[in-house]
Amino acid sequence: MTNIRVHSELHYTIQRTSSFIFAILAGNSTYQTVLGERVTLEPSLPFERLAIDTGHHEILRVTVPPGPFSLTYDANVRLDARIATENPSSETPFADLPAEVLGLLNPSRYCESDKLDRFVDRTFGTIPPGFERVTGICNWIYDHLSYIAGSTDSSTTAVDVLVRAAGVCRDYAHLGIALCRALGIPARYVSGYAVGLDPPDFHGFFEAFLDGRWYLFDATRMAPIDKLVRIAAGRDAADAPFATFVGAATLDTMVVSAAEYDDAAEGESTTAPVSTA
Amino acid sequence: MTNIRVHSELHYTIQRTSSFIFAILAGNSTYQTVLGERVTLEPSLPFERLAIDTGHHEILRVTVPPGPFSLTYDANVRLDARIATENPSSETPFADLPAEVLGLLNPSRYCESDKLDRFVDRTFGTIPPGFERVTGICNWIYDHLSYIAGSTDSSTTAVDVLVRAAGVCRDYAHLGIALCRALGIPARYVSGYAVGLDPPDFHGFFEAFLDGRWYLFDATRMAPIDKLVRIAAGRDAADAPFATFVGAATLDTMVVSAAEYDDAAEGESTTAPVSTA
Amino acid sequence: MTNIRVHSELHYTIQRTSSFIFAILAGNSTYQTVLGERVTLEPSLPFERLAIDTGHHEILRVTVPPGPFSLTYDANVRLDARIATENPSSETPFADLPAEVLGLLNPSRYCESDKLDRFVDRTFGTIPPGFERVTGICNWIYDHLSYIAGSTDSSTTAVDVLVRAAGVCRDYAHLGIALCRALGIPARYVSGYAVGLDPPDFHGFFEAFLDGRWYLFDATRMAPIDKLVRIAAGRDAADAPFATFVGAATLDTMVVSAAEYDDAAEGESTTAPVSTA
Amino acid sequence: MTNIRVHSELHYTIQRTSSFIFAILAGNSTYQTVLGERVTLEPSLPFERLAIDTGHHEILRVTVPPGPFSLTYDANVRLDARIATENPSSETPFADLPAEVLGLLNPSRYCESDKLDRFVDRTFGTIPPGFERVTGICNWIYDHLSYIAGSTDSSTTAVDVLVRAAGVCRDYAHLGIALCRALGIPARYVSGYAVGLDPPDFHGFFEAFLDGRWYLFDATRMAPIDKLVRIAAGRDAADAPFATFVGAATLDTMVVSAAEYDDAAEGESTTAPVSTA
Repeated sequence: MTNIRVHSELHYTIQRTSSFIFAILAGNSTYQTVLGERVTLEPSLPFERLAIDTGHHEILRVTVPPGPFSLTYDANVRLDARIATENPSSETPFADLPAEVLGLLNPSRYCESDKLDRFVDRTFGTIPPGFERVTGICNWIYDHLSYIAGSTDSSTTAVDVLVRAAGVCRDYAHLGIALCRALGIPARYVSGYAVGLDPPDFHGFFEAFLDGRWYLFDATRMAPIDKLVRIAAGRDAADAPFATFVGAATLDTMVVSAAEYDDAAEGESTTAPVSTA
Repeated sequence: MTNIRVHSELHYTIQRTSSFIFAILAGNSTYQTVLGERVTLEPSLPFERLAIDTGHHEILRVTVPPGPFSLTYDANVRLDARIATENPSSETPFADLPAEVLGLLNPSRYCESDKLDRFVDRTFGTIPPGFERVTGICNWIYDHLSYIAGSTDSSTTAVDVLVRAAGVCRDYAHLGIALCRALGIPARYVSGYAVGLDPPDFHGFFEAFLDGRWYLFDATRMAPIDKLVRIAAGRDAADAPFATFVGAATLDTMVVSAAEYDDAAEGESTTAPVSTA
Repeated sequence: MTNIRVHSELHYTIQRTSSFIFAILAGNSTYQTVLGERVTLEPSLPFERLAIDTGHHEILRVTVPPGPFSLTYDANVRLDARIATENPSSETPFADLPAEVLGLLNPSRYCESDKLDRFVDRTFGTIPPGFERVTGICNWIYDHLSYIAGSTDSSTTAVDVLVRAAGVCRDYAHLGIALCRALGIPARYVSGYAVGLDPPDFHGFFEAFLDGRWYLFDATRMAPIDKLVRIAAGRDAADAPFATFVGAATLDTMVVSAAEYDDAAEGESTTAPVSTA
Repeated sequence: MTNIRVHSELHYTIQRTSSFIFAILAGNSTYQTVLGERVTLEPSLPFERLAIDTGHHEILRVTVPPGPFSLTYDANVRLDARIATENPSSETPFADLPAEVLGLLNPSRYCESDKLDRFVDRTFGTIPPGFERVTGICNWIYDHLSYIAGSTDSSTTAVDVLVRAAGVCRDYAHLGIALCRALGIPARYVSGYAVGLDPPDFHGFFEAFLDGRWYLFDATRMAPIDKLVRIAAGRDAADAPFATFVGAATLDTMVVSAAEYDDAAEGESTTAPVSTA
């Protein structure tokens, strides 16, 4: 059990009335519990919270008139990551996958798993299935890629990253997802808050569905995996941007932070599976 | 009101025990009602029907031992397409889109709408919004593309199709979806049965979300739009193949047909909007 | 007849002994004559001038030790662009193309003409052949694209540009070349100095082979076409970068300019064909 | 010294007067000598032989009226491949590359070497330079790819092949070329006749420029490398198709063969470098 305090601030200049969707709220699940939170809009404006069922998270929608606009979010979150005593050593057979998981086997905009069947066979075919295989994928990604800020853009896909051998967190996640799906393992993109990220920012990682539940993976090794606070999940980063808008606006500054505030249950360095199910 | 009798047969040789998912069942909605249906497996095997919530359709899952295997489906379907007396002349503002529709604004594997913002502005920016604009997109696609069987494959995307100027029904649909999303109009891929398709086959078309409901579009002009029987819907064709399997199997023959069996309400050629909401 | 004074300066910091190739020298041809030139290296280092036959230009090769390094080039160039009294109204038939031109019909790294056969048929098929058709291509490019600095990078191709509808001069040229080749018209990329470019920089444009000779085209409309001073030509921009090196070096500043210095023969705005043959 | 008898037949039906270029003639060089040859056109038609300087080969150009048309080629070729007693253990420095070789460092349509700099560093960076490194590339390609007829098409590139892990001879060659260029080694595509190819066909392989001369490589291992008869060379397969035409024609049948006809000097299995310089 770990307690994380998360904070984010987004400061905009709105040129023309704009409708925003923000995905910055910490989610509630058996894995993580929001103990308290505060959403502050400046100027104060009415907003909606909408549940996105596919990713089991909430987004915030607001329409903003011209002028300066800020959104500040603070939350205290308790993580109850189930640290498995044993690694899940099996992958759920296709015939047993829950209906809501099936779509996460399909290729998506940034994860062209349909192109990688031979590549994964060749590269990961002999690794034992389950947690060990997905860990093998993450290790391979970590070794193969260079983490280079600015090396990719919003149209970069997993295949691009595989070829160019460089990327940032979202690219690492996309490649992990694509490789998992190509092996028949459902996988999804997750955005979140991460402790110790340098420079501080929103983070992107992924989950793989093994033995009936979702497990967190982060091939970047940039933050402790058992202190990730999940915001949104989806097929890939297209489903989980921290902000989307229609209108005309400029993001002037952004502040993101996450810190452990209670030392209970910490200290162990987790290399064991972290399940969010 | 139109009655359609649909039929499909899939004959396989199974080399190794294989798990299949079939998306061939006609869906139930306010738009279409399955009056009666029969699913026949040969050999007779237990199968599941699973509801796929995102597309509001059902799939059929079955595990098949080695040997010959056939699946036959027959259904009588009543279509209650709401023929609008007036075209929806507005597109739902971003701020009012239902939560479950938001993901259908995002780019997907075969519909890279994120690349087409300038293209759509330039090409469709001056067409009045709503049904007229999506119709303009369909007309443009019909004029721009040549329908050429075999010109594309399972990795062909909307952007490829735009450049190569050729494709088949799924490509026409992908391009329509990508262009709509680039304009801020949610759109989804729909597979189905179509009356009069030559050669007979499963069909692919799309829906755009206008003024609070889904409207059917088919840029191929290969079949009457008010006689399309919907099977599955999803982000793109990756979500709606008629069959997927894990194992080893060969599709030997496939028969697909759809015919009107009741002449009530037919004869009118529909160019008015067909809503499925 | 027009006289242009061109000037370029490249200031580097060399971290590790580096071998450079520079393509900044004005070329000599029946079209343009270098009346005088000066190459200054600081520190003074021995360099080679190599003739590149495919593009009929010269490059400059030098190996540079660590430290600061500058290359300055000045030349006075006389342009004798043949302003045709009549537009070439024919395209050289495939059976009559000179051997050295044949390779410029082939697709290249940034000009995937092989993908555009249907697109060009549909878009330019009815324009009369020759100068009028290539002019039609340039007009279409000018209308279709937005010139946006930074919108593309060194891996952007003609097809990308067609889809994204934005680019810079090299992208305009690549698209022009790809469309010409897809129509069976040999075309090549040309780098050069341009009068009046804002901001000043090296420029990229293209040539099409019509009726037995090369004609200059520039879809950007950013500089008068009869005042372009040619440096290098090749299949696409991959063959004509102003600098390439192996080693470790940083370009600190770059100055480029081109100005008419003799007012004879100027004033006429040329929309007639400019032949460089 | 090896003697090879090559033979090819191309049988067309011409629907509309068509202009053809054929690249099927065995080349002459210090490496290979055409001892005798016969070109037979049926019907008999005047044709040109054009020297293509960039690849130092000849092509055959002919315009053909409607009706049946056949081209038959027979040649006896002596190969004088210099089997080096020592592997070239160095790569020619950038500063010393001959001018005519420089363009073969650049990316081309099917060989996007510009994208592979990190990939080659990571994968081949520690292999000693020269023949050993290019051999390492060929071994890696052989292990990584599956040779699958029909798995690729005329728009497939080296990067596609790297990702999809399958291809045919031209794809193997493209990947070899792209990887070499990314390492700073000039490389070019070569088409030719190969002894023992099954099924018989024209073959595609590549040459790398090492220590001042060209060396043959063939990552497919489908034919003995010291019995390859070179036809054409170029940047990639776009420069060396066996036939190109403008008009309307159908290739009905094609026969290709190559056989050693003199047993002198054969029997040794060559794994030593084969230089064509």
